[in-house]
Amino acid sequence: MTKRLEVVYRLTLARGESAQSKAHDIALEQTAELPRELVSDSVMQRMVGCVESVTPAGRFRYIARISYPVESVGPDFTQCLNVLFGNISLKRGIRIVDIHWPNRLLETFGGPGYGITGVRRLTGIENRPLLATALKPMGLRSEQLARLCRDFALGGLDIVKDDHGLADQASAPFRERVAYCQAAISAANRETGGHTLYFPNVTAAPWELAERTRHAKQAGCLGVLVNPWLTGLDSMRWIRDRFSMIVMAHPALTGAYLHPSHGIAGELLLGDLFRIAGADAVIYPNVGGRFGFSRALCEKINQRLRQPLGELAASFPTPGGGMSADRAADWAKRYGPDTIFLIGGSLYGQGDLIAASRRLKQAING
Amino acid sequence: MTKRLEVVYRLTLARGESAQSKAHDIALEQTAELPRELVSDSVMQRMVGCVESVTPAGRFRYIARISYPVESVGPDFTQCLNVLFGNISLKRGIRIVDIHWPNRLLETFGGPGYGITGVRRLTGIENRPLLATALKPMGLRSEQLARLCRDFALGGLDIVKDDHGLADQASAPFRERVAYCQAAISAANRETGGHTLYFPNVTAAPWELAERTRHAKQAGCLGVLVNPWLTGLDSMRWIRDRFSMIVMAHPALTGAYLHPSHGIAGELLLGDLFRIAGADAVIYPNVGGRFGFSRALCEKINQRLRQPLGELAASFPTPGGGMSADRAADWAKRYGPDTIFLIGGSLYGQGDLIAASRRLKQAING
Repeated sequence: MTKRLEVVYRLTLARGESAQSKAHDIALEQTAELPRELVSDSVMQRMVGCVESVTPAGRFRYIARISYPVESVGPDFTQCLNVLFGNISLKRGIRIVDIHWPNRLLETFGGPGYGITGVRRLTGIENRPLLATALKPMGLRSEQLARLCRDFALGGLDIVKDDHGLADQASAPFRERVAYCQAAISAANRETGGHTLYFPNVTAAPWELAERTRHAKQAGCLGVLVNPWLTGLDSMRWIRDRFSMIVMAHPALTGAYLHPSHGIAGELLLGDLFRIAGADAVIYPNVGGRFGFSRALCEKINQRLRQPLGELAASFPTPGGGMSADRAADWAKRYGPDTIFLIGGSLYGQGDLIAASRRLKQAING
Repeated sequence: MTKRLEVVYRLTLARGESAQSKAHDIALEQTAELPRELVSDSVMQRMVGCVESVTPAGRFRYIARISYPVESVGPDFTQCLNVLFGNISLKRGIRIVDIHWPNRLLETFGGPGYGITGVRRLTGIENRPLLATALKPMGLRSEQLARLCRDFALGGLDIVKDDHGLADQASAPFRERVAYCQAAISAANRETGGHTLYFPNVTAAPWELAERTRHAKQAGCLGVLVNPWLTGLDSMRWIRDRFSMIVMAHPALTGAYLHPSHGIAGELLLGDLFRIAGADAVIYPNVGGRFGFSRALCEKINQRLRQPLGELAASFPTPGGGMSADRAADWAKRYGPDTIFLIGGSLYGQGDLIAASRRLKQAING
């Protein structure tokens, strides 16, 4: 494994640009932020990115490999993001297509607190995919959301999460909602002997996120939902380290980075970055739903979340975003058991949520 | 002033898309996240975005005006970002080109703690632009950075900020760096009778950001630098409310949103959003430097930061990103006195930093 942070960029050249100088500009821009002639040899060696290679990759396209010393990052995940794509986000024609992580950074940031193995241990669910759904729409009162919780739990789903837009609106304020929903799920669990979990959405400003997570834990929740691109990715490490809760991460606001010629490849952003920052499960919009993710991208996200990465635990891929309950069994075959399937609207569309949940469970578990 | 959150989107249609249905999809996706037929009339009325108009705006382009009830946002700035661009970031061909803010949200989020007037009051600088520079490159030791501080302060610059990539690297750890740099600047101020300020970069995970900000305040700093897109925008409101320090915001990682057909217009992201979330000064890459911002965009950012916006204080536009000291006087004429000019590399290139700073000050202040 590498000792430096190796980043592979795909460059798309504008008229008059040279691939070599664009690569060297990136290496300086992301570290010294000064022209080469103003940087001492000592700083160049210790801190500045090194252009390892630049190779053609089609019309106006090049692959540039740049390795950064881990010293340029230090202990902060924010600074890691900054080195990867901070200032160059403001330029054009630069896409991160691969990252090779040095063990030292992986150890520093730590990854999932539970991961696939830990979530299975905590929930006692072995050898099968997990089934999750979302409470929606916003605007329902807490009692109404609790009734949905009850039905999904009676139907035997594994996880009921807040829709990522349920925050602290007056229609169902956070603390009230958590009390109602967790109580409804606990009651249904007692009735069925099941173990449905409720993950409330704690996305908020840091002081409030901590309070809401504490509140959720006290209410008996084992996990929470967070939108890390809204709160800062470190909110996930915070939840992991201070509250030891399962972190399910939602991709809100990340889509702007997925442009084909400028940004960060989806499997790196939702795969590596979310996993390294502590997501136990990562929601992404599955192919064929309301969003335009390709099958190839979805499979790459699954792979990056599960593949060996230093000593880090693997994270659960959580495809959602308009998945149809009808096709869930096919997806389970394709994506395998280490997956959480997040199915919302397609259950609501069936009217009777208990029956719809049971049918889904039957379809997945045979 | 409007009572709803009115967002103007420019839609770029893909083959087979209709502008009307794309607009209605946005209104539902950003709130109920369910198809229309599954949403009750009551929720539609209270929470879902209302498509006010859709008008043609060129080949495959339309302008859609959607107004959201403030109830869909509630008290959280994160949820406000989510309503504006959360899920639809994952779609394509949607760009926010204008936002009309209801007073209620502006009052909730609060904007700059000091703003232009407050910073002028605190620093005693009236009727002229402020001059700022950046400590760089990363890799220098704290003593070396402190020597740069001393020179810039002796040269009479108003603000010396950490480069946005100076975090807590071993070469100049945060606490040590702040001690050295603030001491060097205080000593130079005593020598000259001047009032140069040092703004250390506190960008970090929330628990660490709070500690670093507290440390900076104890060391005598009046302001800090933060990269809000790395930490979450609410970190600025945190610094404002818990530490009452001046917040200078850096645009790292925001560039992916500035794509012409999908994202958020630069003057809204770096103008409205940064200002509303509490930035007293907003750094952006000026036209003609190392980045590709147009003159029109820069002037729009200046305008959005300074124009009346409810009861919110105005923020200082802070153009930087490779600005030349030679041309600073021209920029001062063009951008006016309510500007902080951030000039780094162009001072370093002159070798003698005291003389270079004095020349710059002379050029700007006549």
